[in-house]
This record gives sequence, structure tokens and C-alpha cells, in this order.
Amino acid sequence: MSQATNQSWGGRFSEPTDAFVARFTASVNFDQRLAPQDIQGSIAHATMLARVGVLTDDERDAIINGLNEIQGEIERGEFNWSVPLEDVHMNIEARLTEKIGITGKKLHTGRSRNDQVATDIRLFMRDEIDVIEVELKRLREGMIELADREAETIMPGFTHLQTAQPVTFGHHILAWQEMLARDHERLLDCRKRVNVMPLGAAALAGTTYPIDRHVTAELLGFDRPTENSLDAVSDRDFAIEFTSFASILLMHLSRMSEELVLWTSAQFNFIDLPDRFCTGSSIMPQKKNPDVPELVRGKTGRVYGHLMSLLTLMKSQPLAYNKDNQEDKEPLFDAVDTVRDCLKAFADMVPAIEPKKASMYEAARRGFSTATDLADYLVRKGVAFRDAHEIVGQSVAYGLKTEKDLSEMSLDELKQFSDTIEQDVFEVLTLEGSVAARNHIGGTAPNQVRAAAQRAREALVALKVGA
Amino acid sequence: MSQATNQSWGGRFSEPTDAFVARFTASVNFDQRLAPQDIQGSIAHATMLARVGVLTDDERDAIINGLNEIQGEIERGEFNWSVPLEDVHMNIEARLTEKIGITGKKLHTGRSRNDQVATDIRLFMRDEIDVIEVELKRLREGMIELADREAETIMPGFTHLQTAQPVTFGHHILAWQEMLARDHERLLDCRKRVNVMPLGAAALAGTTYPIDRHVTAELLGFDRPTENSLDAVSDRDFAIEFTSFASILLMHLSRMSEELVLWTSAQFNFIDLPDRFCTGSSIMPQKKNPDVPELVRGKTGRVYGHLMSLLTLMKSQPLAYNKDNQEDKEPLFDAVDTVRDCLKAFADMVPAIEPKKASMYEAARRGFSTATDLADYLVRKGVAFRDAHEIVGQSVAYGLKTEKDLSEMSLDELKQFSDTIEQDVFEVLTLEGSVAARNHIGGTAPNQVRAAAQRAREALVALKVGA
Amino acid sequence: MSQATNQSWGGRFSEPTDAFVARFTASVNFDQRLAPQDIQGSIAHATMLARVGVLTDDERDAIINGLNEIQGEIERGEFNWSVPLEDVHMNIEARLTEKIGITGKKLHTGRSRNDQVATDIRLFMRDEIDVIEVELKRLREGMIELADREAETIMPGFTHLQTAQPVTFGHHILAWQEMLARDHERLLDCRKRVNVMPLGAAALAGTTYPIDRHVTAELLGFDRPTENSLDAVSDRDFAIEFTSFASILLMHLSRMSEELVLWTSAQFNFIDLPDRFCTGSSIMPQKKNPDVPELVRGKTGRVYGHLMSLLTLMKSQPLAYNKDNQEDKEPLFDAVDTVRDCLKAFADMVPAIEPKKASMYEAARRGFSTATDLADYLVRKGVAFRDAHEIVGQSVAYGLKTEKDLSEMSLDELKQFSDTIEQDVFEVLTLEGSVAARNHIGGTAPNQVRAAAQRAREALVALKVGA
Amino acid sequence: MSQATNQSWGGRFSEPTDAFVARFTASVNFDQRLAPQDIQGSIAHATMLARVGVLTDDERDAIINGLNEIQGEIERGEFNWSVPLEDVHMNIEARLTEKIGITGKKLHTGRSRNDQVATDIRLFMRDEIDVIEVELKRLREGMIELADREAETIMPGFTHLQTAQPVTFGHHILAWQEMLARDHERLLDCRKRVNVMPLGAAALAGTTYPIDRHVTAELLGFDRPTENSLDAVSDRDFAIEFTSFASILLMHLSRMSEELVLWTSAQFNFIDLPDRFCTGSSIMPQKKNPDVPELVRGKTGRVYGHLMSLLTLMKSQPLAYNKDNQEDKEPLFDAVDTVRDCLKAFADMVPAIEPKKASMYEAARRGFSTATDLADYLVRKGVAFRDAHEIVGQSVAYGLKTEKDLSEMSLDELKQFSDTIEQDVFEVLTLEGSVAARNHIGGTAPNQVRAAAQRAREALVALKVGA
Repeated sequence: MSQATNQSWGGRFSEPTDAFVARFTASVNFDQRLAPQDIQGSIAHATMLARVGVLTDDERDAIINGLNEIQGEIERGEFNWSVPLEDVHMNIEARLTEKIGITGKKLHTGRSRNDQVATDIRLFMRDEIDVIEVELKRLREGMIELADREAETIMPGFTHLQTAQPVTFGHHILAWQEMLARDHERLLDCRKRVNVMPLGAAALAGTTYPIDRHVTAELLGFDRPTENSLDAVSDRDFAIEFTSFASILLMHLSRMSEELVLWTSAQFNFIDLPDRFCTGSSIMPQKKNPDVPELVRGKTGRVYGHLMSLLTLMKSQPLAYNKDNQEDKEPLFDAVDTVRDCLKAFADMVPAIEPKKASMYEAARRGFSTATDLADYLVRKGVAFRDAHEIVGQSVAYGLKTEKDLSEMSLDELKQFSDTIEQDVFEVLTLEGSVAARNHIGGTAPNQVRAAAQRAREALVALKVGA
Repeated sequence: MSQATNQSWGGRFSEPTDAFVARFTASVNFDQRLAPQDIQGSIAHATMLARVGVLTDDERDAIINGLNEIQGEIERGEFNWSVPLEDVHMNIEARLTEKIGITGKKLHTGRSRNDQVATDIRLFMRDEIDVIEVELKRLREGMIELADREAETIMPGFTHLQTAQPVTFGHHILAWQEMLARDHERLLDCRKRVNVMPLGAAALAGTTYPIDRHVTAELLGFDRPTENSLDAVSDRDFAIEFTSFASILLMHLSRMSEELVLWTSAQFNFIDLPDRFCTGSSIMPQKKNPDVPELVRGKTGRVYGHLMSLLTLMKSQPLAYNKDNQEDKEPLFDAVDTVRDCLKAFADMVPAIEPKKASMYEAARRGFSTATDLADYLVRKGVAFRDAHEIVGQSVAYGLKTEKDLSEMSLDELKQFSDTIEQDVFEVLTLEGSVAARNHIGGTAPNQVRAAAQRAREALVALKVGA
Repeated sequence: MSQATNQSWGGRFSEPTDAFVARFTASVNFDQRLAPQDIQGSIAHATMLARVGVLTDDERDAIINGLNEIQGEIERGEFNWSVPLEDVHMNIEARLTEKIGITGKKLHTGRSRNDQVATDIRLFMRDEIDVIEVELKRLREGMIELADREAETIMPGFTHLQTAQPVTFGHHILAWQEMLARDHERLLDCRKRVNVMPLGAAALAGTTYPIDRHVTAELLGFDRPTENSLDAVSDRDFAIEFTSFASILLMHLSRMSEELVLWTSAQFNFIDLPDRFCTGSSIMPQKKNPDVPELVRGKTGRVYGHLMSLLTLMKSQPLAYNKDNQEDKEPLFDAVDTVRDCLKAFADMVPAIEPKKASMYEAARRGFSTATDLADYLVRKGVAFRDAHEIVGQSVAYGLKTEKDLSEMSLDELKQFSDTIEQDVFEVLTLEGSVAARNHIGGTAPNQVRAAAQRAREALVALKVGA
Repeated sequence: MSQATNQSWGGRFSEPTDAFVARFTASVNFDQRLAPQDIQGSIAHATMLARVGVLTDDERDAIINGLNEIQGEIERGEFNWSVPLEDVHMNIEARLTEKIGITGKKLHTGRSRNDQVATDIRLFMRDEIDVIEVELKRLREGMIELADREAETIMPGFTHLQTAQPVTFGHHILAWQEMLARDHERLLDCRKRVNVMPLGAAALAGTTYPIDRHVTAELLGFDRPTENSLDAVSDRDFAIEFTSFASILLMHLSRMSEELVLWTSAQFNFIDLPDRFCTGSSIMPQKKNPDVPELVRGKTGRVYGHLMSLLTLMKSQPLAYNKDNQEDKEPLFDAVDTVRDCLKAFADMVPAIEPKKASMYEAARRGFSTATDLADYLVRKGVAFRDAHEIVGQSVAYGLKTEKDLSEMSLDELKQFSDTIEQDVFEVLTLEGSVAARNHIGGTAPNQVRAAAQRAREALVALKVGA
């Protein structure tokens, strides 16, 4: 049998495919990853075809048994993938026909590779989303517990990377957790739109066979069949939505990574990361490099790139299926793997972060971080906020010149800038006082942090997948 | 009063801002667009401050009256925006203080520009999402009605831009509508995450004033206050989510635009667009250019660019607020305007599309578009699908050589390729028969198209904003 | 020997790397592709070290022989790549030490993995650029010959995908060639900046050994050593520049692909592509899909994505080397492969394009494509251009109504719109006359097309690589 | 005169443009920025038309005088831009005709808006590139002088943001300068491809008038006319190339900005930025925020976005001109402005950076930054590099435990790890010794830094624009 006739569409053609072109246009090297979903979809399709009378029960059973055997061959690494057979679909179908004869060809009744691949990708995405969701949940739980544990650990809060006001480390970690909570919502919103079944759209217009798409959808755990066959085979917006979710998630992880890198530097010295998340240098033996956060930060680019890749891919494509769409898989696969691995790495690492409390506290104590508290103190004494701001500004300028923090100045020194300042000012200039005073929902007061951790715990439990 | 002391933070500084730097770092030229939301937020903040006793009722009233007057000045174009005052917030506050004196400065009690601007943007986004939603709904309605009207109009369905199988024009338009239905869902999912209130996060840690964030949230129509102050002032993921929605929407519009451009070409000649959506050429008087779809297709790049811009902006930013974030507004504003205008243009244009039915029908008739129907016919007669495929392939090769469509061959000619073919084959080779036979949910049969239009109508009614 | 002590930096660490983290942070699965360049660089480094007296000649020879053997092992697929050894560099060094003992460790004297990998990538890029350049040249040559052959073949020129004016097919193909000529220049400009040697920068600051970087640069064929060690190990702008080149090239190929897809559609029917560049459909046997151009168009997204990936990767990275940079390789490798394969596919395909001349001619004849010629005729008779434009506009409107092309109207009919029109008008309304009249550099007149082809041929010969 | 007939293509159309559509499709609001170039191009075109006899000298003079008057009106803000007239070209032509009558319409002879706008953009780009080049040169000069001044100032060099080895501040600044040197080359390479003249391509095919494109090119300072009319009106690759240059430049500036932000933090405390490049906080009076570097870092996203926008815009566009291309201007204008302003801000700021030498020195002294020097010392004593690495690793582990830098350990303590260590080890453990020892081209030794600064100075002088 010639190479060309191995292909499902050989009849009409007068010359064989050029060998380079065959390799260039084949997808089996990467889409073989969809084999489990392809087989799962085919089993459901055969089951439905038998239910509506297009296949006999014997044919159905032969097909299902054959497919199950092929699944085993693939799992055991015994399956011989063929590039001339182009893709995962043709490879499996050819092997099925080899195994069970002519009946194997009947499996393709009432479907096309166009709806088949669209179904495979959606099954794959649903599986992967569920795995990702487990890691995301684990990471969020780790953060909530760390935050609860460190609800009173004081560190400097930064804006513009300048010391701004003291916050607690637990509060900071809960800021991370909030980002992920929204990412989690986005993931589940995306899942809703993934879990719809294209099978039955056939090439583009539906099929003349008496298929029952509700049956197949139910067998495959889809919420419902798609509403329009042209749309079903041609759109990949769910893949773009997933890479959007992934890009926003990686953006968040890149921010956390940046902070972890800063915090492990000698200059900040806020935390220690266990050695197993770090590596060393081949030339500088003293180095302990925060490799995991650096690498996650670097992987942000990879995921942004995949988003841009898919958006570009789909731009201006006329309906329905075009060969361009074959390019949807590699970015998606890599985005899925990257998201899963980065979440796993973080979920392992975050609970192991060891804050260096004394170092954090000292950093917060310096840098005039209670300047706002002084301003608020003045306002409570009746000074207008903007005037208080100017008074504090002058105190800070004096502090910079004399190298004294506000809490280190004498009352007389402080009184230079406003007569309103009294002895009780020193209460508000402590870090503990400053932090405890931000006592409202969302504020950094330790009791607020603990309450927020508790609410986060409850929200996490309340989340339901695929609801 | 010197320029520097006009600024809210002048006290600590020893030299005035360089004039170029002042212009370079100022945002008032674009963020003045947020003035209505800034005033709305300030009124709610003042109301809350009075409720918790930080302001007297007189102070509150003075502030609210002053702000309302300023709103009027802005609307009438009488407001004098000042670059040295940096941004919309300081411009309005300075004017308020000019109007009502020292009380104006009290408005800033318990808040910072960091939570203020985050609140303004969210209010702005919510407003704009609601406007966009109206246009999106209008466009979907127009598509549903067009589809219903053209449920029986036959055109060629394409894959790879090659004639594949006949579909109906109504079915094709419903494919567009399905894309938009998912965009609509994404928009509402995004709105949920936009409609949360950062106000009260102050600079980054919350405030020492006894604020009641639930009151302010209720006054502003937010679903709830944000849970974490550091997160509240620093994240812009909702803006990225919106531009993701916008990018996917524009991707869809670019596909429709591509088709409109193809269909109005002399080569396709499938539709006519009313003159008002087209323009002419300065040098070629015969041209009628489909400007609106071309321009919408071109605007896809603009929106993708804004998405990439915001993703890049946020990558690796340590918490909490950094000046970088000032760059969030222009891409967001332009994305909002582009989405709204493109939807409006499409909502006006789509119902005015005039299908050229005869031309579409003729195109479907040529190109062997019922070849699949012949294959299905053979299968129903007992031929295995893959064998049927080869038989049809040979028939098509013969047709290409003899320049005959399948329906134009004699029975004898057809029988060359398979003895199974009988006289009844000619029934399945008509376009009407082909289309009607795809009679299942999602299929192109006219009754399925009408049923799908009806379901789409009901789904659109069932959608609820902000639920 | 434990896993950890296999690593080059194990001394300082107290716990072994977590297995998942080891896999997550290892690069050997993809950077093994750099093995030939790594060995080439090491041989030059050893040669230089011996020349300056850091190695003995015997040590140098042992190292070089060992490396050559390893190269052979890799080529024969006998090399055992180890993930715990992290990367290509450590894998090769460990094997070298296994082979030649302690001397193997001396190879790393005066260098670091930071400058080593930067050197490997640049050698790799230079090699790949030279391969790409061969394909690009071949494609340009194919276009020039096709253009020359088809210098008189008339087709419609489009703006807004509306028939505008007749052009020749050769002229159109030369437009493609011009795009590629600029891409070619960009590639060579990029090569200049690639071909500079980082080796000797060591980790970041240079080395205390008495190295001679000019010697190593000459041995490796680099134009010169880099000027600054911090810059040398940390920047990847040359990789971004390459992906920019690649993105612009793919943008150009996507435009050509779009046209090939249009031209092979039944609606345009302008060209035929040989079967070997096309594939068929599993369900629609009549289809002959232009797979190669569709796939190349789709691959545009992939390359744009890699550009965005690398830009994001490098954004905001502080000096010098960070682990993030490990992420530079996969996008670059894939960009290189994609560019090379797409160019190869096009270089094979373009000369095989078969224009369907009669069909092109007929399309140009319809669509009022000589309307501009009528306008120019009027202007030559003394009518102002803008007035002529209106006269022609009215003629076209009449033509649309009566379904007559301009050349099909009688003199009387034409005279309705302007008395200036005389019998000689029919000369300018032919396609051949129209085309021949655009007789200036850059114009579509056949003699201009042939002259342009000749100039292009000469420019291609004049190009020098690495000059 | 009705609105529609104001338009250059009104003759063929039966209904007026919808008001919203007119606004949606008009470009005059942004392309009026091209007015100076549009007039410059028109004057050259008129001059050429007179030279070849298409215009009389009187007509030419009337046109040129009229255009000069219009230029004055625009400069004085007296010109009335009209949206119904669509774009800058029609606005100026209409005003010219108003001024000089029917002769004004003759200006458009032998050209189209398609080649006109392509010419305008290229003239604009060339002008802006030349302005940008001045700022870039100024910034590089400032860096070279700063580097020369600080050639001996010791600071820690980082990899992975961990202290690695001491370098000099001058060396670090020269790393920045090297990045910009390559950007400068890229800018000039781009300029070569910008400075080619599309005028004469007319709508897409050239013109039937006897134009002389070499004359026009020379009048406008273009290197030569474009070779192909279809390519000339349709490609925008030069604009993408410019935004690629701009993206790489901003990537570099973002890295410098990141470092400036780090260095001005309390934790690093390496430099001081003059107040005029900083701003304060409305709520935290002690803050001095490095606004300029933060903002430049943020603007990276904007420029990356424009690159992606233009790449998307051009993807898959069939030849020749499509309306999509109207979208090229805004991203390009904004990229130009952003690049120019960021360079200006940096050129002003960089020479004003004040290194805090004592603080830098102290940071370098801590952190085992001379560990590599110890390793090199051991190797010179005959220890194999990888073994030396392990010895140093153990010393550092001991130092971390005992809180001693290597230079603070006694000889006996050091001898624990290797007998090879002698008294002379303390010479190599000083920062000055470490830095001076990296004495080869590209190394951080002060004399190498000064020599590199001198070479950079000479290279800058040698650069020629437009050569």
C-alpha cells in the first residue's frame, strides 16, 4: 500500500505528498498527546451510533475492545506512531482497522476530524483544568495557613519600593492569596465554556446520520452539545480564554517571584528559602540562588507568548475550519504544563518560606514608616490633613538630616514643627500601634488578618468545580 | 504660592520638579476622563466620613455642594486643568479647597490617591461595561433576526476556503452569534470582578480612621469591599481581564470582518453592504470599499496591543503601588472606546447586510459541495465510509477533468466508480436535500436554524447583568 | 557519589534538591541541542588557555580529544543525558572528566556557565542564520524567475479586495520579493550583532586568569570580543532582534499565504498549486486544501508569540545573569526551526505556482479596472483630476446599473458623462494598454517588471554575508 | 455643497455616509500630525510635475504658495480641520482649492492617497528618528562620562540578585552604554529602510503620467524610489521595525529603571537621585519616589503593545492597500513620542546620579564576594577548579554559620578547608585586588573600564546617520 493511500483523502490526488511537506504538515508528533481523549471520544461516539442503530452492538463492541487495546499499547509505549498518517486520529483509526478489519472504518460515520479534534481538545482542557485546580487550591491553602501563622509579624510595606507603612507579613501573604482567588474564579468561569461538546458538527454543517448528540454529551460528561456546527469546528476562543487566565496567573506569580527574589537578597534579607528551591553557582561557591522564583518569573514570558500566539492565529480566519488551527495545540499544551508546574512548585515552596522576623522588624522601624500615623495623630488633634502632611514632611526632612527616625526625636524636636504635638505622640509612633490601628475590613491589623484568613478558608471550601 | 507647594507632597523636597519631568510624569491630560467617577467616589467618601463622625454634617454638605459645582464646571468645559497639579484627584481637590476653604482638605481623610484611583477606574469600568453590554445585546439581536430571516438561504460552507458543503446563510450568521454569546458571558464574568470596592485601602495598609467600608460600598453600588488593602491598591488584573475579553471579541469581529470583505469582493459577490458603511477611492471611482469591516479588522491589533501592554506593565511589579501603574489608563480607555465603537458599527451594519441569494446558490451548486452526501448515500447502501470516500474521490477527479458537477453526471458515469449507485442518488445531490438532511441540534437544516434562533433569543433575555 | 555532589555547586548546600524541582529547573532536555556549539567553544577555550600558559599542551590535547569523542557519542545517539546534571555544559564536562580524569575539570578555568551559554547561543544563532539565509536566497531567486516569466500576465490588482487596476502577475510576485529583500537585509544586520564573543566575561566581571579573548574570538570566527562583561552575560537583545526579524518575515509570508489561499479558492481561481503542497479532507473527497500556505499563515502566531515571550522575559531584569534567562532557548529554537521550514516550503512551492491566465485576465476585464485610465484620459484632454473622477464615477454607476464594463459601452453612452470623450478612449480602456502605460520605475508595465527583476537579481548577487 | 460631495470619491454613491460611520472611519483627528510632511511631499510632487511638463510653472507656483500659506495657518492654529473631509490629505487639498481654485485639484495628478500617506509616514519617521538619535547620543555620552568618573568606585556585582563578585560602578554603567550602542545601530539600520520613497506608486500600479520619481526622491532627500508599486503602498514593515527597535530599547531602559528603583530603596541605598526626578506621596510625607525610572519601566508595556498591534495589523493582509492600514499611525506616533521622552528623561537624569560610595563598598565587602578569587587562588596553587570550588563552598558555609566574611577568618580557620592556603591569600581577598585582577578587554579592572570608555567615545563619534 502506497504512502498516499494510507491517507484518508488519497483518492482524488495525482501525485504523492512531498516528504518534507508531509513532515511539515503532520501533527502527530505533538497531537499524540490527545490519544486518551481521542479514544474516550471514539468510545462514546460508537456507543451513541449503536444506540441510534447506525452500528450493530457487535460492531460497537469490536470497536470499543479494539480502542481499549490500543489505549494499552499507547500506555505501554508499544504504539508505532506514523508521520505519513498525519495525526493522532488517523493513526488510531488505521491501527483499529488493522486490528478489527472493515468495521474499524465505520467508526468515522457521522463525524469528521474537524469535530473530533475540537472534542479531543475540550476533553483534554477539562482534564487539565481539574488538575490545575487541585494545585491552585493547595497553594491557596498554604498561603492562608502561612498568613494566619504570621498575622502579627511586622514588616515594612512598600510603595515605589520605598518604605511606606508597617504591615504584617500575614497581611502581605493574604494579598497574594486574594490575587489567586480571582484567578481561581477565572479558571472555573473558563471551565464552563470549555465543557460543551462539538462532536456531531462533523466537517462543518452537521451530518445526515440520525445522531443523538445529547447522548454523546452525557457519556462524555459535557454540560451540553454546542449550538452551531460552523462555530463548533472553527472557534478556539476557549483556548484563548485559558491562556488569558494563565497569563494573568503567571503575572501574579511573577510579582510574588519578584518579591521572593528581593526578599532573599542580602540587601532585604527578609526571608529564607529552603535549599531545595535554590541552586548554586559553578564559579561562585557562596551563592544560593532563588532559582525557582526566578524561573517562574521567566516563564511568564512563555505564557504571555502563547496567548499572543493564539490570538494571532485566530485573527481574521474565515469560517469554518482552516489548517491554521493545527497550530493551536502546542501553545496550549505548553501553557497547561507551565501553569501546572509553576503552581506545584509554588505550592511546595510557599509553606516553607521562613520569615526572618528581626530583620523585617528592623527594616520597618527605619524609614519613617510611621509618618502617616503622625499625620493622622495631628488630624485627630484638629489639624487639616494637608497641613498635617506638610508638618510631617518637615519632620522627615529634619530626620534625614539628623539621621533620626521620628520615634527617636525628642518632644522638643517634634514641637519645632507643630505645637499640637504632645507626649502621647510616642504611642502612635510604634510599629505595633501603627499596625493595630488599621482595624477595618481589608486593613493590616492582626485581628483583621486572622479574620480575613478565616473568610478565605471558607470561600475556598465553598468553591465548586463544574457547577 | 510656588508650583511645588501646589503639589500634595511638597514639604519634604528641596528643589522644584523639572518642567519636562512634571509634564512627563503628570497624568491629568488623560485621567481627567475619570472626573465624574472621582467626584462620585468623593461624595460617597464624604457621606461615609460624616456617618462615622469624622466630618460634621456641615462639612459634608460643603464638600458635596462644592463637588457638584465642580462637576458642572467640568461638564460645561469651564474647568481649568493644571499639569503642575499632576492628576485628576489633585486638580479637583485643589479646586474644592479654593471654593470651600480648609474643609476641602478634610475630604482626603482616611484615603490616599492609591485607593482613590483604584476606585475611580473600577467605577469607570463598570459604567463602560454597561454601555458595551447594550451594544453587544443589540448586535446579537440583529444577528438572530437576520439568521431567522435567512434560515433557508443556501450558500456554500467553506473549509480551507474551499467549497465544502452547502449551509444556510442563517446558520452561518448564527455561528457569529454563538461567538458573541460567549463574549457576552465573559463580559459579565469580568464585571463581577470589577465591581468590588478598593476605597479604604488608603495608601496600602488601611487607615487609622474609623471608616465603614460597607457603607461606602453600598453608596457606590459595589458588591462588597475588597478583602486586602495591599492587593486593592496594587492589582490591575480586572483591567487585563477586560482587555482579554476585548481581544477575544475583536478576534471574533475580525473573523466576521474578513468574511464581509470576502463576500463583498467581485469574486465572491455574496452580499451587498449599504453605501453608508463603505467609502470610495480618490483615484479609482468605481471602487466601493468595505471600510467598516476593514477598519474593525485593523482595530484588532490595537486591542491585542493594549492587552500585551497591560500584561507587560504588571509583570514582576513588587507590591504595593508603583508609579508604573499610571500607565494602566490609556490602554484601558482606548480599549473601551474601540470595543464600544466597533460593536456600535456592527450593530448598525449587520441587519443591513443584503444577501445576494442567486449568487450564493450558484456558488454552492458548483464545487462538488454535495460530495459528502454522495459518500453518506454509499454508506447507507452498505459501503464502509472510508471506501465510500475513495469512490467519491474518483468521481470528483473525473468531474474536474470533464468539468461536470456530480449532479451533472449521468447514472452510467457515476456507476463507473461504484455499482452501488442507483437512480435515487440524484435526490441527495440537490442543495436543498443536502441542507435539510443535517437535521439535529447544531445542524444546518432550516428548521434547526429557526429553533436555534429561538433558543438564542431566549438565552439573551435570560442574561442578567451584575447578578 | 550522591546526586547533589554531581552538581557543580553542591558544596555549600545542606539538603539535596527536591526531585520535582530538579526536573523543573533543569534545562538539559532542550539545551542539549547546543552540544556541538558547546564543544566547539570548549575546544577554542582550551586552545587559548594553552596558548597563554594556563594549560599545558598535553592537557589541551587530552581535553580536545575527549571532547571530540563526546561529539561522536552525541552524534551516534550514545550519549546519556542526565537531568541531575542540569544542563548541556555540566553533562559534557562530567563526561569529559569521566574520560580524562582531573584534567577535565581544568577546562572550566577562566570561564563560567554564564559566558559559556551566551557563547553557545551566539554560535548556534550564527549557524542557523546562515542556513536560513540559503533558503531565503533560494526563495527570492524563485520569485524573481517566476516574475520574469510572468511579466506580461495580466491580473486584477486589488485595494480593499476590490478590483482596482490591472497589474501583471510578475509585478505582483516582485512585490513579494521586495518584502523579502528587506527581510534579508534585516537578517544580515542581525547577524552582525550576533557575531560578537561573550566568552571571557566569566560569571559577570571577567576573570583573574591571563586570558586572551582576541585569540578565542578568532578561533571561533567571531568579529570581536564583547566590550563589557556584565552586558555580555546578561543581555539577549540579539535573540529578540532575531525574533523581530522572524516576526516581520512571517508577517510577509502570512500575506503571501493569504493571497495563495484566496487565489486557489473556486471564487478567485487564479492559480493552481501542485498536489504535493495540498492535502485532502477525511469527509469531503472533492477538497484540495492549500495546506502549506494555511499552515505558514498559522505559524505567524507562533513566531509573534516567541517575540513577545522574549521581550517579556527580559523586561525589568536587573543585571547581570538571572535564572530567568534559561527561558530564552526554547522560543529561539522554535523560531529558528519555524523560519527555516517555512522558507523551505515556500522556496519549493513558489516556482511551482501555475497561474490560470485566462481566469485572471477575465477577472481583470470585469470590475471597471480601467476606470483610472479613463480618468487620466480625461485629464490629458484638459479636465481637472477631481472633476474627471466625478465623471468616471457616474460612468461606473451607469455601468453597474446596465451591467456593462466601461469598454463595453458605446461612445454615445460614454459621452453622456462628458463631451470630452472621443473614439480614441477605447485604446486606453484595454488591459494591455492600461498596464503598459504605467511605465516608470516601480510601475507595472511589463518592461518595467523585467527591468526590476534584473535589478533584483543583481542586488541578490551583491549581498554579502558577515561583511 | 453637501457633506458627501466634499469627499473625493462621492460620485458613485447613492446615500450619504452615516454620521457615526464618518467619525468612526475618519483619520483626521490623528493624521493631522502629518501635515508638515504632507505639504513637504506635495511641494516636491508639484515641482516634479512642472519639471516633466504636467504642470505649468505658474500652476506649480500657485500650488506651492498656497501650500506654504496653509502651513502657516496650521502652525498658527488657524486651520479648520474637518472630519467629513476624512484625512489630512483631503483637508489640505480642499483648502488649497479654496485658495487657488481649480489648479489645486491638479496637484493630485499622478498620485493617490495610498502613495501619499506612505510618503508622509516615511518623511515623518525619518524626522523623528533624527530627533531620537540626538537624545540617544546625549544619553550615551552622559553614561560614558559617568562611567569614566566612577571607574574605580566599587560596588557588588549581582547574579540572581545575590552578591556575586565586586565590580566597579563605572563598569556597570558601561554595560548600560553597550546596550544602547546596539540600539543605536538598530536605529540607523532602520533609518536606511525608512528612507526610500513610495511616491509615484499611485493607488497600487503606478501612473500613466510621465513622472520622474528620481527627481521627487532627490527633492525630498530620499535615498531612492521604491522598486515596486504594490509593495510601496501596502507594506508597513519599516514601522514594525521601528517599534521593534523601540521595544528593545525600552526593554533596556526597563532594566536600568529596575536597577535605579532597587538602588534608591532603603535596602540597597546605593545611589541618590536628584529630587527633580522624584515625586512624593499624598499620604506618606517621608517618601521620595523614583518616579521617572518607575514610569519609564511602566512605559515598556506601552511600546511592546504597539509592536504587537502593528504585527497583528499586518498579519494576513492581502495586497495592496486595505483600510486596516489606517490603524498604523496612532501606535507609531505614540511609540515615537514615548521613545523620545524616555530618552530625554534618562539623558537628563543619568549624569545626575549620585553614587553613595561608602554604602556600595560596604555591600560589596559583605556577601563573600571574593569567594571566586579564593577559588582562583587555589587553582593557581595547583588545585583543580572544581575541587577549589568545593573548598570555597565549605569555607562559605562556615562563614555563614560563624557570621564572618572570608577576609575576616584567620589563616587557621581557612586552613581547615585546604592546606594549600597560605598567608598571601589575604591579598586576593580585598575588593580592590579582586577588581584590579580582572584585567582584560571587557573586564571590570579600572584601567579596562577607562579604556572601554575611551573606545565607546570614539565609536560614538564614528557613527554616521543616513550613510
